[in-house]
Amino acid sequence: MSVTPAYAVPHLTTALSGPLQAIERRFLERQADIEHWFRSQWLTTPAPFYASVDLRNAGFKLAPVDTNLFPAGFNNLNVAFRPLATQAIQTAAERLVETACNILLIPEDHSRNQFYLANLATLKGMLEMAGFQVRLGSLDPELKAPVELAAGAEVLIKEPLIRRGNRLGVEGFDACLVLLNNDLSSGRPEILDGLEQPLVPPPALGWSNRLKSDHFAHYHRVAQEFGALVELDSWLLDPLFRKCGEIDFQKRSGEDCLVQNVGAVLKEIAQRYQEHNIDQQPYVIVKADAGTYGMNIMTVHDAEQVRELNRKQRNKMAKGKGGAAVRQIMIQEGVYTFETWGDSGAVAEPVVYMIDHFVVGGFYRVHTGRTAHDNLNAPGMHFEPLAFDDCCASPNRAAGPGAHENRFYAYGVVARLALLAAARELRMVNST
Amino acid sequence: MSVTPAYAVPHLTTALSGPLQAIERRFLERQADIEHWFRSQWLTTPAPFYASVDLRNAGFKLAPVDTNLFPAGFNNLNVAFRPLATQAIQTAAERLVETACNILLIPEDHSRNQFYLANLATLKGMLEMAGFQVRLGSLDPELKAPVELAAGAEVLIKEPLIRRGNRLGVEGFDACLVLLNNDLSSGRPEILDGLEQPLVPPPALGWSNRLKSDHFAHYHRVAQEFGALVELDSWLLDPLFRKCGEIDFQKRSGEDCLVQNVGAVLKEIAQRYQEHNIDQQPYVIVKADAGTYGMNIMTVHDAEQVRELNRKQRNKMAKGKGGAAVRQIMIQEGVYTFETWGDSGAVAEPVVYMIDHFVVGGFYRVHTGRTAHDNLNAPGMHFEPLAFDDCCASPNRAAGPGAHENRFYAYGVVARLALLAAARELRMVNST
Repeated sequence: MSVTPAYAVPHLTTALSGPLQAIERRFLERQADIEHWFRSQWLTTPAPFYASVDLRNAGFKLAPVDTNLFPAGFNNLNVAFRPLATQAIQTAAERLVETACNILLIPEDHSRNQFYLANLATLKGMLEMAGFQVRLGSLDPELKAPVELAAGAEVLIKEPLIRRGNRLGVEGFDACLVLLNNDLSSGRPEILDGLEQPLVPPPALGWSNRLKSDHFAHYHRVAQEFGALVELDSWLLDPLFRKCGEIDFQKRSGEDCLVQNVGAVLKEIAQRYQEHNIDQQPYVIVKADAGTYGMNIMTVHDAEQVRELNRKQRNKMAKGKGGAAVRQIMIQEGVYTFETWGDSGAVAEPVVYMIDHFVVGGFYRVHTGRTAHDNLNAPGMHFEPLAFDDCCASPNRAAGPGAHENRFYAYGVVARLALLAAARELRMVNST
Repeated sequence: MSVTPAYAVPHLTTALSGPLQAIERRFLERQADIEHWFRSQWLTTPAPFYASVDLRNAGFKLAPVDTNLFPAGFNNLNVAFRPLATQAIQTAAERLVETACNILLIPEDHSRNQFYLANLATLKGMLEMAGFQVRLGSLDPELKAPVELAAGAEVLIKEPLIRRGNRLGVEGFDACLVLLNNDLSSGRPEILDGLEQPLVPPPALGWSNRLKSDHFAHYHRVAQEFGALVELDSWLLDPLFRKCGEIDFQKRSGEDCLVQNVGAVLKEIAQRYQEHNIDQQPYVIVKADAGTYGMNIMTVHDAEQVRELNRKQRNKMAKGKGGAAVRQIMIQEGVYTFETWGDSGAVAEPVVYMIDHFVVGGFYRVHTGRTAHDNLNAPGMHFEPLAFDDCCASPNRAAGPGAHENRFYAYGVVARLALLAAARELRMVNST
């Protein structure tokens, strides 16, 4: 644990590592200022209960591309850091319910996904290790009796929710905290409205309500404030984006907006690349503004590409998780991933996990069949998770920029900037 | 880390492990109740900033024998758990000063002790890793200029304290938190009185003010409450004790009180041993009621032994750290250590470290030249520290009592009971 073997950390292509080391160097120099700033931010905008942030590391740029408030990969974390998660859960729960005891965990209902069930078993185990009684309650109105789910060697029991007045529980179990691990893609169920118990994260931040572009608008301001603090061009941490309102890929309505905005973002990236002497081809990611699971994602290098989509591509873009029609579209600067793993040069994308405002670990999505500018969380995609060998909170000034622990610290800083953007979304939701 | 190699954990003599497994089993069964109870306790009595607790594990009994509010062995902890300490420091500091930035650390002044300097370097590094600027300020009024101290490869700089009005700092450094790592054995310096900044732990809990018997009186009540909660005879976690007022070993005054109380404690232990079918010889530890560093400690198996002390033994008992004359004496039930290490059967005593109310690690004091009923923190004693391979917060019900992680969890529970007793001392001090 204290020694990170070289083979356990993806390789950052050295030709591009100079400017990244500039980011790391600045973070190391300003560590005390950065942590002090975060502390003051969490006071006015408390962090969500948990979150995971997908990062892309282009060497010259390190930026979040997605922030998930219902993280579903706890099983991919290094078990060595389990105590860190336990401690963070205790802090988070104490803040919410001073003497919390029973936690009702509401999972996703795609019960056959073994990866998700492994996540659920891990999350339940972490909550129990923190000293809570945990039961699983299902949002599926068809579920009338407890059902057993095999998660590896472990058996999880999912039970029908029971609402008595404004209290939610399951048979014989009165929860003092309700924890959502269901992103509510298919809408906000009434059974969660007006609960007496704290319900986290709030359903208003489920994917049926939340827009990625809102998150990245908050993130943009966070990155600017942070950039001013550490005297760093905030673009180095912030992916450019634009959005289009009503798009119908099948009917081809709204296409002009899309072509125009894709072109505008590509042009702005090109300008930034020129400013920073970066010899790479700009590209953008076109994705649904609401939704998750990497559906409806398209890599575009040229605005005209959007007009040339074939029928199959249009169908793919037109449907989201749970069959939701895609209407709002976000065009986000593509950030290259220049971290590779193993002899095959498989592309590796870091994912950072946080509980409350603490980084508790992370993993790399390692995908052998993809290139540096592909999205690594694409539909039906299979990745190999590679657990971080570090918890992102152990910077080592003596080791200098480029050392693994300092690269991990940089991940942790940028992930917490995204967490802060999510905290600001949360504040907006709570104040309305 | 997830796998604890057998060789890294002391062996608990198996003939005696039955009753201990009873303690562990109860802790495992009641884990959620225990953690819930601790949470509610910390609400009314916040934990001290940090503490270390010396435990003794007799197999049938697991009890604290000393609680140090100025822990000095951070260098002995497993570096793998450093992130846990970092996170706990952040939580503790946020509770004290919402936007704490600069920490003034006040160390002991026995600057030649390499073990202490290693502790200091580790503690400073942990505070820095948590994102604070840290400087060392000395209580030594003779120190007029900064002095360099070599702590292994690292150089620490200790500076003269500067007090401006009611703010304490060092040259060019205004602290927002003052952290004492000096147990104030030689008295409470005026320079610490009436500070504007939070000063932790409060000087009133320094050894010049604090009595071990007060701590164990609080601990006795904590153990009774906890015993009622988990339905366990609280004696299994609580060392019996009595105290004597004015004792002068050299003048032999107060000797009758000592003989009488030693006899009374020995008799009570014998009764308890009989109740629990324990075939061991009772013994007591006679020690100074105020003081630290294991000075003035005597193992006694028979009350008359006290009358038969020779001149050298009397002199040893008569002096404490910093030359303080020993006046008040505590007679504490001797708790056997039945944990041994390696082929030589070296005795191992667990020490648990906590920051705020979180267990952040621990180590065994392993001493080859001692027996099961000796005190392992005796004058001039050298021990080999053996870092815990576990952070005491990862109980594993599937593994059952006797598994290493469950033994470590039991250590963590009992250490936190002692921490709670210290928190109650703290509340008494703060309310006066």
